[in-house]
Amino acid sequence: MLLAASKVFDRCKPVIGVNTDPERSEGHLCLPVRYTHSFPDALQKLYRGEFRWQWRQRIRLYLEGTGINPTPVDLHEQQLSQEQHSWAHINGRFQDQRSEISGPHLLPVRALNEVFIGESLSSRVNYKSCKPSFKFSLHRASYYEISVDDGPWEKQKSSGLNVCTGTGSKAWSYNINKVANQAVEEILKIVKKHGSLNLPLNREFIQKVTNEYNDSLLYSPEEPKMFFSIREPIVNRVFSSSRQRGFSSKVCVRSRCWDACMVVDGGTSFEFNDGAVASILIDTEDALRTVLLED
Amino acid sequence: MLLAASKVFDRCKPVIGVNTDPERSEGHLCLPVRYTHSFPDALQKLYRGEFRWQWRQRIRLYLEGTGINPTPVDLHEQQLSQEQHSWAHINGRFQDQRSEISGPHLLPVRALNEVFIGESLSSRVNYKSCKPSFKFSLHRASYYEISVDDGPWEKQKSSGLNVCTGTGSKAWSYNINKVANQAVEEILKIVKKHGSLNLPLNREFIQKVTNEYNDSLLYSPEEPKMFFSIREPIVNRVFSSSRQRGFSSKVCVRSRCWDACMVVDGGTSFEFNDGAVASILIDTEDALRTVLLED
Repeated sequence: MLLAASKVFDRCKPVIGVNTDPERSEGHLCLPVRYTHSFPDALQKLYRGEFRWQWRQRIRLYLEGTGINPTPVDLHEQQLSQEQHSWAHINGRFQDQRSEISGPHLLPVRALNEVFIGESLSSRVNYKSCKPSFKFSLHRASYYEISVDDGPWEKQKSSGLNVCTGTGSKAWSYNINKVANQAVEEILKIVKKHGSLNLPLNREFIQKVTNEYNDSLLYSPEEPKMFFSIREPIVNRVFSSSRQRGFSSKVCVRSRCWDACMVVDGGTSFEFNDGAVASILIDTEDALRTVLLED
Repeated sequence: MLLAASKVFDRCKPVIGVNTDPERSEGHLCLPVRYTHSFPDALQKLYRGEFRWQWRQRIRLYLEGTGINPTPVDLHEQQLSQEQHSWAHINGRFQDQRSEISGPHLLPVRALNEVFIGESLSSRVNYKSCKPSFKFSLHRASYYEISVDDGPWEKQKSSGLNVCTGTGSKAWSYNINKVANQAVEEILKIVKKHGSLNLPLNREFIQKVTNEYNDSLLYSPEEPKMFFSIREPIVNRVFSSSRQRGFSSKVCVRSRCWDACMVVDGGTSFEFNDGAVASILIDTEDALRTVLLED
């Protein structure tokens, strides 16, 4: 579904998904699971107009600064054609366009779920190919500066930055930000210890608070706003983190990374190294047309 | 410091670190920062016996099961000798010992900070070498089964599993598990909304609760217990996560991963793919001898 959507830049072309693996996949981008085994019903409703359009907002990216390379690496394409893949193929599709002009380039992608920015976590000697990979640190912190809604720039160090849409608020962003029962219980135990809790601390209340907190992370795919979150922020004398997450209309990021990338929907990545500046925002022109079938 | 410690398996050999970059590094494994510019004072104290031994407990690893490869990839060595590095060098140091015997192998490493288990996050075409890397998914969830203190096996899907020592409780584990002011504030707002909070919700109280929660994540390097935590657990119909973290004496993990590894102190990694079983525990025989100088 993400791959299909990544090919559509036209507001006129609807994209509809069917969940072919309902046992193992939530399929939140697809039609409800009941249509998997009764697809004719879905077709009937589409034919009869028993649906409404759902406009899933998407994120666009501008890249500028020194040493950027606006050539995307298409990770989905690599997976599909892994055997016949050749460097010539890549050369044919994506010319190396390392740009001398540093003005903002609008990247030829739209994020349906999220943009993730972080140090590449490539590592390891490849036993089979007998070639050591040139980078190895499995978990290297990402250094960057961030400005939210044209606010002041803030230096940060973390495991990466995630900027999502309403659609993506159910995806990776949710897993980064959700809180566990266990954590809520321990926080409330501390509060109780200070004599500040009226209610008895039972499982039901903890679950209720946990659910309400986690539900607050989700919002409608149609809302033209983004949700940014910082993964595992590192806070010390040099690096601050005034807000770990929040809604915004615009996020600017300046890379201070050594070997980082911006990854769109887990499928396309762009180099994003020291000196590069990304501007991340939603333009409603980029919304993806999907359907909501009537019950 | 981690690299030096990784060479020491002898309880008699003390390892002492000096923080050479106090501006940018916490140096929690080193002597306090004041000795960086007055190292003779430290030497004096050592000479006079004005110190005590600090035993930093370390984790040992047993690996068994089908298709394991107990050959470690030494990531520190790769960094130090990146230019002159050659495959012949690796071949000389670590013979490929893919084992036919599936009995538990005690790995030739001891974790001073932590063991991290997760899918390799290697990705990307390497523009310079003109060779596509054979794996690309930047963020693939890790599948595994876990048994804590010989308890029942539980299937899990997450961004990885971290098992640390007291020393490591201040390191990556801390960044995975710490809670932000912002999250505590939002949880307490929910509690207040239910009429359950006695105290006014001011910044001071929120900070106090946050600090107390985060402090509870830290413990003494000398305690012979491990702290396991699951990073970004994915919870749905198939995968449970009864406890996101906790103390334990023993953690067993069975890999259901495609291309995963166990990484010790961010420096040495072992393949850990489907069928491999790791047993993770502390043996006080493996403790590293370090010093605590008298004030």
